[in-house]
Amino acid sequence: MEGREAVVTIADLGEFGLIEAVTALLPAGDAQIVGIGDDAAVIRAPDGRVVATTDLLVEGRHFRRDWSSPLDIGRKAAAQNLADVAAMGARPTALLVGLAAPGDLPVDWARDVVRGLAEESGQAGASVAGGDVSGADVVMLAITALGDLAGRDPVLRSGARPGDRLAVTGTLGSSAAGLALLTGGLAGGAGGLAGGLAASADLAGLVAAHQRPRPPYTAGPQACAAGATSMIDISDGLLQDLGHLAAGSGVAIDIQSGLLAASAHVRAGALRAAAAALGVPDWLAWVLVGGEDHALAATFPRDTALPSGWTPIGAVSAGSGVHVDGQARGDQSGGWDHFRP
Amino acid sequence: MEGREAVVTIADLGEFGLIEAVTALLPAGDAQIVGIGDDAAVIRAPDGRVVATTDLLVEGRHFRRDWSSPLDIGRKAAAQNLADVAAMGARPTALLVGLAAPGDLPVDWARDVVRGLAEESGQAGASVAGGDVSGADVVMLAITALGDLAGRDPVLRSGARPGDRLAVTGTLGSSAAGLALLTGGLAGGAGGLAGGLAASADLAGLVAAHQRPRPPYTAGPQACAAGATSMIDISDGLLQDLGHLAAGSGVAIDIQSGLLAASAHVRAGALRAAAAALGVPDWLAWVLVGGEDHALAATFPRDTALPSGWTPIGAVSAGSGVHVDGQARGDQSGGWDHFRP
Repeated sequence: MEGREAVVTIADLGEFGLIEAVTALLPAGDAQIVGIGDDAAVIRAPDGRVVATTDLLVEGRHFRRDWSSPLDIGRKAAAQNLADVAAMGARPTALLVGLAAPGDLPVDWARDVVRGLAEESGQAGASVAGGDVSGADVVMLAITALGDLAGRDPVLRSGARPGDRLAVTGTLGSSAAGLALLTGGLAGGAGGLAGGLAASADLAGLVAAHQRPRPPYTAGPQACAAGATSMIDISDGLLQDLGHLAAGSGVAIDIQSGLLAASAHVRAGALRAAAAALGVPDWLAWVLVGGEDHALAATFPRDTALPSGWTPIGAVSAGSGVHVDGQARGDQSGGWDHFRP
Repeated sequence: MEGREAVVTIADLGEFGLIEAVTALLPAGDAQIVGIGDDAAVIRAPDGRVVATTDLLVEGRHFRRDWSSPLDIGRKAAAQNLADVAAMGARPTALLVGLAAPGDLPVDWARDVVRGLAEESGQAGASVAGGDVSGADVVMLAITALGDLAGRDPVLRSGARPGDRLAVTGTLGSSAAGLALLTGGLAGGAGGLAGGLAASADLAGLVAAHQRPRPPYTAGPQACAAGATSMIDISDGLLQDLGHLAAGSGVAIDIQSGLLAASAHVRAGALRAAAAALGVPDWLAWVLVGGEDHALAATFPRDTALPSGWTPIGAVSAGSGVHVDGQARGDQSGGWDHFRP
């Protein structure tokens, strides 16, 4: 129906028009007492404490408009914050969203980002309860997620003890492999894979994992209830994030690569196929240093039964640093630094 | 000690080095249970509800590095969010901060922004409890403020009733006049005023009000306790923000310009001097359409004694829109639209 010249931009709509247009997409969540439209939102915090985390996503650094759809960018932005809440052992309750964008951004694009944020929040049991819009030369999303601990103690990075078991849940390495396929030109656009690879459901699944991670939200509170001694969201890479956990707890973390590679959380077949297609020698590197899948890693006392969906991949011992099959690995090997791209 | 080539940038420090450097500047607040360094912060919410608001500030749109010091930019970014919390009738408890910046940003600049955020949070009784850093081509701040209602109902924009008195507290028009002095070239840099105007403490005070607003944080909870029926933070201009309040409450708002101009919240002498220096015909326009002072406006039942520091400037009646001395004024006259700069 619309020709090229008929695209409505957010400058056409104006600040208040844009807010109105996206607010109409947002159902009120269970935890929301006052939502968008006042000076601030009011959210239930029945526990008497609130878990809160914030992340920035900048176009060209965290996402590309030609690689991901706005719906996926919104879902991903929400996911990484909601996963941080889950990694404390809390249930997500609400999201606040800052959207900065150039005036020529199509309204439909902004609407789809917000739709993605709302959908992913819904998956996690939360809702988008507040926000802000601003002009900027590139699209930027600033997301804050809130959560409730339901009377439990938060699970910190500092509680791992020698003798604990190390376990993971969610997906590891798929997002990094998907990104490698995209940057390697073996997959394009918001859609399928290029050329003969288009037929590979395995590889398409990796690209999808990059575009739309599926963090295991309920696994965080479940690990908390089961007595996890420490927990972290894997967003910068397993080695780097476990390095934070080892340092925070003053312990050594030992990963058994055999357990890891064989676990249900690693799509070994797909990763092998991607490595072959890209000429990458070591597919397990994606699992060890790739981030953005938002898997969860946690430690549990040795005699504690792991909650459903969690798989042991190693153990905690006295010492420091992260070790793979007994070999020390730097805690930032390959991990992401936003100022050293 | 440092020559030009010795400036340490945030790229030199790296993401984790920067986080470490700024975290060292941040005292833990009373409400903070878990602060920076884990997947998320945990903040006390004794009321069982949490007030939450978020704002984006983009370099070149909300601030300029050559007009404001990093300390002032940090203070202002915190102030506008903390004022939103106060405008709900809540006491600010915590701030979460997203900082995006180019890698060549001096570490000292980032440190001073965070110092400003921490100082202003301290003024309001809150602390910086969490955050995120990212690369970007310009400096961007994404601030989320949280607050506690201490058992009171939040004061919304929708509660004004015909017969209520309209009152304000804080400062009105000074920030807009200060900005006009800066854009008019009558004041420069992060320091004093240019030429002969440098001697004018009045004008310097307006520039200072733009660079470092002083929102009346405690007045929000006090108005709430005193029975305010509606309240709003004046950030986009008195007429525009009261327009939101009138629309939200389904009432007409009547401002008496004589009461407003004579109130202690308007620096009439300084505004007159600035208008004369700039050749601006109507200094009261800054009071009516200027934003960013983060004054508070509220309505109170007619027979309620106004809390200390609040001054009546008008009344609420049946009808719609905002009127000045009986004359209707558009609710967005001159107010800011971020996509129509």
